[in-house]
Amino acid sequence: MRPRVKIYLALFLFSWSCQSDKLPVSDQPNIVIIFTDDQGYGDLGSYGATGFTTPHLDKMAAKGMRFTHFYAAQAVCSASRAGLLTGCYPNRIGITGALSPQATHGLSDEELTIAEMLKTEGYATGIFGKWHLGHHKQFLPLQHGFDEYLGIPYSNDMWPVHYGGAPVTDTTHRKSKHPPLPLIQDNETIERITTMEQQDQLTVRYTEKAIDFIERNQSGPFFLYVPHTMAHVPLGVSERFKGKSEQGLYGDVIMEIDWSVGQIIETLETLNLSDNTLVIFISDNGPWLNFGNHAGSTAGLREGKGTTFEGGQRVPCIMKWPAKITPGTICNRLASALDIMPTIATITGTSLPEHKIDGVSILPLLSGEKNADPRETFYYYYGRNNLQAIRYRHWKMTFPHISRSYRQVLPANDGLQGPYSRDTVSIALYDLRRDPGETYDIQELYPEVVEEIQAIAREAREDLGDHLLGITGKNRRQPGFLTEDINE
Amino acid sequence: MRPRVKIYLALFLFSWSCQSDKLPVSDQPNIVIIFTDDQGYGDLGSYGATGFTTPHLDKMAAKGMRFTHFYAAQAVCSASRAGLLTGCYPNRIGITGALSPQATHGLSDEELTIAEMLKTEGYATGIFGKWHLGHHKQFLPLQHGFDEYLGIPYSNDMWPVHYGGAPVTDTTHRKSKHPPLPLIQDNETIERITTMEQQDQLTVRYTEKAIDFIERNQSGPFFLYVPHTMAHVPLGVSERFKGKSEQGLYGDVIMEIDWSVGQIIETLETLNLSDNTLVIFISDNGPWLNFGNHAGSTAGLREGKGTTFEGGQRVPCIMKWPAKITPGTICNRLASALDIMPTIATITGTSLPEHKIDGVSILPLLSGEKNADPRETFYYYYGRNNLQAIRYRHWKMTFPHISRSYRQVLPANDGLQGPYSRDTVSIALYDLRRDPGETYDIQELYPEVVEEIQAIAREAREDLGDHLLGITGKNRRQPGFLTEDINE
Repeated sequence: MRPRVKIYLALFLFSWSCQSDKLPVSDQPNIVIIFTDDQGYGDLGSYGATGFTTPHLDKMAAKGMRFTHFYAAQAVCSASRAGLLTGCYPNRIGITGALSPQATHGLSDEELTIAEMLKTEGYATGIFGKWHLGHHKQFLPLQHGFDEYLGIPYSNDMWPVHYGGAPVTDTTHRKSKHPPLPLIQDNETIERITTMEQQDQLTVRYTEKAIDFIERNQSGPFFLYVPHTMAHVPLGVSERFKGKSEQGLYGDVIMEIDWSVGQIIETLETLNLSDNTLVIFISDNGPWLNFGNHAGSTAGLREGKGTTFEGGQRVPCIMKWPAKITPGTICNRLASALDIMPTIATITGTSLPEHKIDGVSILPLLSGEKNADPRETFYYYYGRNNLQAIRYRHWKMTFPHISRSYRQVLPANDGLQGPYSRDTVSIALYDLRRDPGETYDIQELYPEVVEEIQAIAREAREDLGDHLLGITGKNRRQPGFLTEDINE
Repeated sequence: MRPRVKIYLALFLFSWSCQSDKLPVSDQPNIVIIFTDDQGYGDLGSYGATGFTTPHLDKMAAKGMRFTHFYAAQAVCSASRAGLLTGCYPNRIGITGALSPQATHGLSDEELTIAEMLKTEGYATGIFGKWHLGHHKQFLPLQHGFDEYLGIPYSNDMWPVHYGGAPVTDTTHRKSKHPPLPLIQDNETIERITTMEQQDQLTVRYTEKAIDFIERNQSGPFFLYVPHTMAHVPLGVSERFKGKSEQGLYGDVIMEIDWSVGQIIETLETLNLSDNTLVIFISDNGPWLNFGNHAGSTAGLREGKGTTFEGGQRVPCIMKWPAKITPGTICNRLASALDIMPTIATITGTSLPEHKIDGVSILPLLSGEKNADPRETFYYYYGRNNLQAIRYRHWKMTFPHISRSYRQVLPANDGLQGPYSRDTVSIALYDLRRDPGETYDIQELYPEVVEEIQAIAREAREDLGDHLLGITGKNRRQPGFLTEDINE
C-alpha cells in the first residue's frame, strides 16, 4: 500500500468513526422560511433600497434566486400567513383580514400546514415569531404541527397603547379592549409586553431561538419558520441597530432583520448544513404607507398594504438552496406564497391534503428548467371575500370595488398614522410587463383579453365566491371556531 | 537544478518570448460603453423584465455592479448623449432635445468628449452606432476624438417613412423633408437606409464592428462606444431573434442587444482582456410609452421618455470591471451618466477640461468604499432650458411646468404611435426612498426640505438658467454652429 493511500484510508476511517457518534444525517433538505411584516417590494438592497443596506440578504440573493413577480397570498397579516402555511387562498379557508385580540376563530384543524405535512416525514418543526392565525390555545402553533413556539400571537400594535406611544385611557377607544401583548412559549403566556423596550428585543429573541433550534436539530431534517414581528408598527429595534441606517428607525429595523438572516445563514454554514437547506425570505405584504417615515417602499408600485394593487401584494422574495438553485439567478415568472407548500411537498416527496389547495409547485423554477412557467393565474381577493383583480400571464385586470388608497392624503410620521383616502376602482386592464405601475388602462385595445379574464373571473367566483356579487362559492371551507371556554 | 524548476523556467522563457512578439500590454484599463435607446428601467431580467430574458446582461450584473438610482443626463436622445460624452448637463452646452435632420448645429469643438480625453492617453477610440450630436461633417465623431465610426447620425425614425411602415407621400408632412437614413463610415455616407430589412441588420453590424475593433486593438488601451440604434422605433431585429421572446418584437430586439453584449464580453474574455476592462451598460432614457407593445417598461416608475419623472430619466445601468468591482454588488447611491466622463478621467489619470463640467467621479462607488456618496444633487432639466425637478439626496422636488404625459390616453401598438396627454405639474415633494413612484406629495410635512431645495434651485438657475422664468444662466455655453456649406 502506498503511503498516500494509507493516509486517505486513515482519514476516511477517522471521519467515519466521528460521524458514527452522531445520528445519521438525513437526505431530506432542511427548510427555513423567514417571513417579515409590512416590508415593501423596494425595501432590500437588491430591490433598490437607498436608506439602509442589507448586506446579508444581498449576499443571499447573489448565492440564490431573486424573484421579481412574487405575490403574498393576500395583502394583510392573518390572510397572508394562512395562505403561506396552507397553500390555499386565505378566503378559501375562512381566514381574511387581520385577526384581532377579540377574535374567536382561527385556522381550522381541517387544514394541513407545512409543519403538519413535514411532521409526517419526521421533520423537527419550530416557529419563532408572530403567529396570527388564532390566539386561543386550540389555534396556536403546537396544535398545527409545530414542536415549539416562542412569539406573539398577533400584531404588535394590538395592545392598549396609541400609535405614538401613549397608553390608551379612553375606554371607548377600540384599543382599550386589548390586553397587554402576550409573549407565548409553546402554549403558555410567559410574559406580558407592555413597553417598547420589550418590543425592541423581539428580533434578537426570535433570532436566538432560531439559532438554538438549528443547533439542536442539526442532524435534521428540520423546518424552521421565523415570522418576524417587525417591520410592523410600532417599530422596535435593539440598541445595537439604533441609528445604524440613514433612513431612521424603519431602516434600522430592516438592518436588524438583515443581521438576523445573516446569523441564521452563518449558523447553517458553520454546521455544514447550508448546501441542503432551502432558505426562503418573503414579506407578508406591502408597506403601510400612511405611517410615513415608519413605513417602507413599494419601489414605485401602486398603493400599499391592504390593497390589491401591486404595491400591496407584490413582495420581495429570495430563495437560496445551493444543492439546486444556480447562484445569482433572477426569476421573473409569476409565483406566490401559495406555492411554497406544494413546492416543499414535491421536494420532500410528501403527500398533499385531499381537499383542494391553490398553490402549484415552483420547483421547476428553482431548478432553472427552461421555459418553466408553473403559474398562469393569480387571484387578488381582499376584504370579506371580494375578487378585486386577476393576474393572467402578464395581464392584470381589476374589477369594480372601493379600495383603501394612500394617494391625495398626507402620511403621518414618527409612529403616527396618517389618514386613508378612497379610490373607486373600475374595470381596467394593465399590461404589467410594460406597466407594473398600473397606470395605463388598455382594455379598449385588448377586448379579447378582457373577455378571457372575465371567463377566469367567473370560474374564480363560482369556486371561491364574491360577497360584493352575493356569490358564496362552492368550495369555501370554514375557519376554526372557538370551542374552549374563553373564561377558563 | 531540479527538473520541475527547469520546466517552469522553460515555460517562463517561452511565454516571455511569445509576448515580446506583441506590443507591450498597457496598464490602462480598456473602456467599453454600451448605450441603448429608449430601453426602460424595467427592461432587463435583473430589473424585473418578464417577457424576454437577458442572460448575458444578467451574468454581467452577477459579475459586476448593478445601479438602481442611475440617471440619464436628460430624457431624450441628443441631450442624453451630450451629457454622457462630455460630463456636462446638456443644456449647459447647448444640446437639448433630439437633433433633426434639418438641424444646423451640433456638439461644439470647445467641449471635451471622453474620446478626446482618452486620445491624450494614447487610447484607440471607436464608435459603432447612433451618434446624434450633429450630422454635418464638422460635428461627426471623427471630429470629436474618435478614430473610427460606423453608424447612423440620428434616430432611425428620422426618415421619410411613417410609423407603421408606409412611405411619406404628403409633402406637407414633417417627415417628408427627411432624406433616407444615411449609414456613415468615418466621414462618408456609405449606404442609404430605406427599408426595414436594412434596419433589421443594424444591431448585428454594430456588433461585428465592435468585435473587430477590440481584436485589432487588443494590445490596448482602447475606448469602445456602442450606442445602439435599437430599441428605438421603428424596431428592427435580425432573423435569428425574430419571435425569440414572449413579448413580441420589443422583446426580440432587447434579446438581440443582450446577445450583442454577450459577444463583446466573450471577445474580451477570449483575448484575456476582461479583467482590466471596464464595461458600462446604460440606456439613454426611459421607454416611449405611447408606442404600446413596441415600447418598454419603467418597472412602475412614473411616466416615460421625454419627461422628468423617474420613468423618463432613471435608467438601468450595469458596470463590470473585475479588477476593481466586487462581483454581484448593488449600488443604490445616486449616480448619473454625467459622472462617467470624470470617473474615467480619475481611473486613467487624465486631465479634465478647464471649463465647468457637472459630473463627479463615482470611482469610490465602484471600489465599494464604505459610505461613499459622491453625488448629492441632480438637476432634471428638459425642453429648451427648463429646470423641472431636482433630486437632493433621497428627495425629489418638482417645479411648475407642463409635462408630456402617457396617462389617461391609449397607446397605439405594432409600430404606431398613440397620443400624449398633458400634465400640469406643480411644486411637489417626494421621498424617493419610500415613494419612487412619485405619488405622495409631502411638501407640507417637510417645509424645511422644500426651502433647502428651493435654495439649490436658485443656484441651478443662476448657473444654468431657466427659460420659463426668463433666466439665461451665467455659465451656459453655445453649441457648435454649422460653418460648412450645406449645399456642397
